[in-house]
Amino acid sequence: MGSTDELDDLRNGFNGRARRSKEWVHDLMIGALLDERAQSWVFWVRRSSWMWIDLAFAGAGCWRHLFLILCNMLKVPDHQVAGHQAGDGKLGPLIDDSGKFYKPIQSDGRGSIEVAFYTSLVSSDTNIPNHIRRFFPIFHGTKLIEASDGSGQQLHLVLQDIVSGHLSPSIMDIKIGSRTWYPQASEDYIQRCFMKDRETSSLALGFRISGLQIESKGSGFWKPDRKLIQKFTAEEVRLVLRQFVSSNSSADSGVDPDCTFVSTVYGGSGGILAQLLELKEWFEHQTILHFYSCSVLMVYEKESVVKEMSSGAEVKLVDFAHVVKGNGVIDHNFLGGLCSLINFISEILTCSDVHTAKASLQDPKNNCYTNCDTQN
Amino acid sequence: MGSTDELDDLRNGFNGRARRSKEWVHDLMIGALLDERAQSWVFWVRRSSWMWIDLAFAGAGCWRHLFLILCNMLKVPDHQVAGHQAGDGKLGPLIDDSGKFYKPIQSDGRGSIEVAFYTSLVSSDTNIPNHIRRFFPIFHGTKLIEASDGSGQQLHLVLQDIVSGHLSPSIMDIKIGSRTWYPQASEDYIQRCFMKDRETSSLALGFRISGLQIESKGSGFWKPDRKLIQKFTAEEVRLVLRQFVSSNSSADSGVDPDCTFVSTVYGGSGGILAQLLELKEWFEHQTILHFYSCSVLMVYEKESVVKEMSSGAEVKLVDFAHVVKGNGVIDHNFLGGLCSLINFISEILTCSDVHTAKASLQDPKNNCYTNCDTQN
Repeated sequence: MGSTDELDDLRNGFNGRARRSKEWVHDLMIGALLDERAQSWVFWVRRSSWMWIDLAFAGAGCWRHLFLILCNMLKVPDHQVAGHQAGDGKLGPLIDDSGKFYKPIQSDGRGSIEVAFYTSLVSSDTNIPNHIRRFFPIFHGTKLIEASDGSGQQLHLVLQDIVSGHLSPSIMDIKIGSRTWYPQASEDYIQRCFMKDRETSSLALGFRISGLQIESKGSGFWKPDRKLIQKFTAEEVRLVLRQFVSSNSSADSGVDPDCTFVSTVYGGSGGILAQLLELKEWFEHQTILHFYSCSVLMVYEKESVVKEMSSGAEVKLVDFAHVVKGNGVIDHNFLGGLCSLINFISEILTCSDVHTAKASLQDPKNNCYTNCDTQN
Repeated sequence: MGSTDELDDLRNGFNGRARRSKEWVHDLMIGALLDERAQSWVFWVRRSSWMWIDLAFAGAGCWRHLFLILCNMLKVPDHQVAGHQAGDGKLGPLIDDSGKFYKPIQSDGRGSIEVAFYTSLVSSDTNIPNHIRRFFPIFHGTKLIEASDGSGQQLHLVLQDIVSGHLSPSIMDIKIGSRTWYPQASEDYIQRCFMKDRETSSLALGFRISGLQIESKGSGFWKPDRKLIQKFTAEEVRLVLRQFVSSNSSADSGVDPDCTFVSTVYGGSGGILAQLLELKEWFEHQTILHFYSCSVLMVYEKESVVKEMSSGAEVKLVDFAHVVKGNGVIDHNFLGGLCSLINFISEILTCSDVHTAKASLQDPKNNCYTNCDTQN
C-alpha cells in the first residue's frame, strides 16, 4: 500500500490534470489501465462526470481485479435531464457500464414507496399486464453503494439504465398530471406542490416538461434551462415537441423546426404515439395504482433514424416515489394529463401529414416532411 | 276587482287547503279553471311546488286569457336535484308547462359567462359538432321574468327543461372534474373550491354526485341528502349507480340493488354508457372550451323501461357558469373525471354481464339480471 504522501501526490496530480483539461478522456476505464500511475498502489480516476472514485489494489496480480472494479465503476449519468443530480457534494443517481442505474433511496418515506412499488412490479401478484410492464425500467433490487455526496454507503435502487444503449440520445422527461400531490400527503407538501403546479404548466396543460436534451448535429446537445421549460406555454410546448423530432433543433427560436423525424419517432406502429396510446388504454381501466409526480420519458437516437430509418423510440415511466393505491378508482389525474400530451403529439403528426399530402400533390416525388405550421 | 278582505279569504282558503292536503292536485291548471273561485276577480293557485302565483283577470271574457296565463305559468321545478332551489324567498330556476327552464342569470360574472356560452352554442361559428350539440340543453335566449325570491323582474336564461317529457324521472347530477376551479378565478374562489373538492369525492374520484332522485315504485322518489352524497366513497358511488338502475332502490342500504334496468339504461347503443363514450371521444380532442364545475345529468324513466323496454335514457351537460377558453389544450380535468365515471358504469355493466352469463348457464330460461356483487 502506498504512503499517505504518495496518495496525496497522486490525487493532486490527477486533480490538477482533470481541472486543466476539459477534453479529459470520456471513458477512463482503458485510460486508467494504460496510465503508468495505475501500477502504483492507489490511484484516482476522474470520470467526465466530475466524480472521483477511490480504488485500491495490490501488485500485478490484481490487474484482473482492477479491470473488474473499473468495469463496475460508478459515474454520474451523462444523459440525465431531470431530477436531483449527483456531483459537487450532492446526492443523485449513478450509473455503471453494465447498463444499471443506481438511484439513492430517499429517507423521508418516498424511498420506501418507490422500493415497494418496484418490488410489487416484479411480483406476479400485481395485476399489471405484461405488455404494460415493459414501460417500467427493469428492477434489479437494492444495493448499498457509496453515495455521490460523499456521505458514505447508502441504499440505492438498482434499475435499468434506460439510455445505456444510446450514444447520443434525445430525451424528454414529462411529469404527468395537473396535480403532483396525493390526498394523503402532508399539508405542507400539498401546499408546496399546489403552488408549483400553478406556477408551472402542470395546471394548464395537465403535464410539465421537467427536462430535455436534443441532439444537435455537430454541436452536442441542446439542453434548455429546466426552470424555463417547466413553465412553457401551450405554444412553447408545441414548438419544443416539434424541435424534439427535427434535424435542425437549436436554441435559436427563429429556426422553424423541420420535423424531419416526426413520422419515424412519433408516428408508426412502434412510435411514441402508439406507445402512449397503449399506456392510455391501460390507464382508462386500471384502478390499482395512482401515479403522482411520475414522468413519461421519451428517448430516441437521431443517428439511428438517419442510418436505419428506425428510431428505437421508447416511452418509459419513471419516478414512483409518490405512487399510491388506486382503491378501485382510475388515475384520472394521470390519464387526463396523458391524454393532453397525446393530443399535442397527435396534432403535430396530423399537421405533418397535411404538409406531406400538400407536398405530394404539388410534386409527386416530394414525400418528405416539410416545415409544420404552429397554427393548427 | 274583489276587496282586500276577499283576497285574503281566498288566499287563506287555498293556503289552508294546500297545507291540509298532501294529495293536492299536481297540475292545477285545469283545477283552477274548474274552481268556482276562479270566477272571482283575483285568485291564487298553488302548484305542487309550493309557489304562489297572483293572477288578475276581469269577467268571463277573460277565460281565454286566463287559460293562456295558466299555460305559461311559472313554477318551481318538481325534479330539480342539484343547484340553487327556488322557494321560501330564495332565488332559483323556474319552469313553465311548455318545456322551458328559466335559470336566473347570476350577477357576479358567472351569469354573463353562461349567457356567452349558450349564445356561442347556437352560433354556427362555434366548432362544436352537431352530434355533440345534442348534449346541451336547447337555448331559447334570455327573458325578464319575476324572480322566485320576490325581488322583482330579473333576467333569466330560457333553456330546454330536460325532464319536461317525463312523469317520474330518475335523475343523477354529477359534477365532473377533480377540480372545480379555473386558473383565472379569484384567489378566494379558488381556495373555497379547493377545500370543497378535497372534502367531497371530487378529488378522489374525479367527480362528485351533486344530487339525485330515484323513482321508488309506489313511494314516489328516493332523494338522499345532497350533503351526504357529495362525500360518497368509491364504494358508495358504485352502490348508488347500481341503485339508479334497480327496481328495488331505496334508502335501506341493506337492500341489494337488483340492477333490473342496467342493460337498458346503461348499456346498448343508445344507453348512457354509449352517450358518455361519445362525449369522451370529443373531449379527447376538443381544445376550444374547458368546462369547470359543469355537470353530467343522467335522466331516464323507469315506467318507460318497463312498458316499452326503452329507457329514453339521456345524458345532458348542464351548468356553464365556469366555462373558459381552452386555448389549444384539451380539458384534461373534465376528461379525467368523465373517464372515471365511465369506468364505474362499465364495471357495473361488466359485472351484470357476468351474472347474466352465470344465470344463463345455470338455467337457460333465466336471462334477466340478478343481483350484482359490489366486489368487482
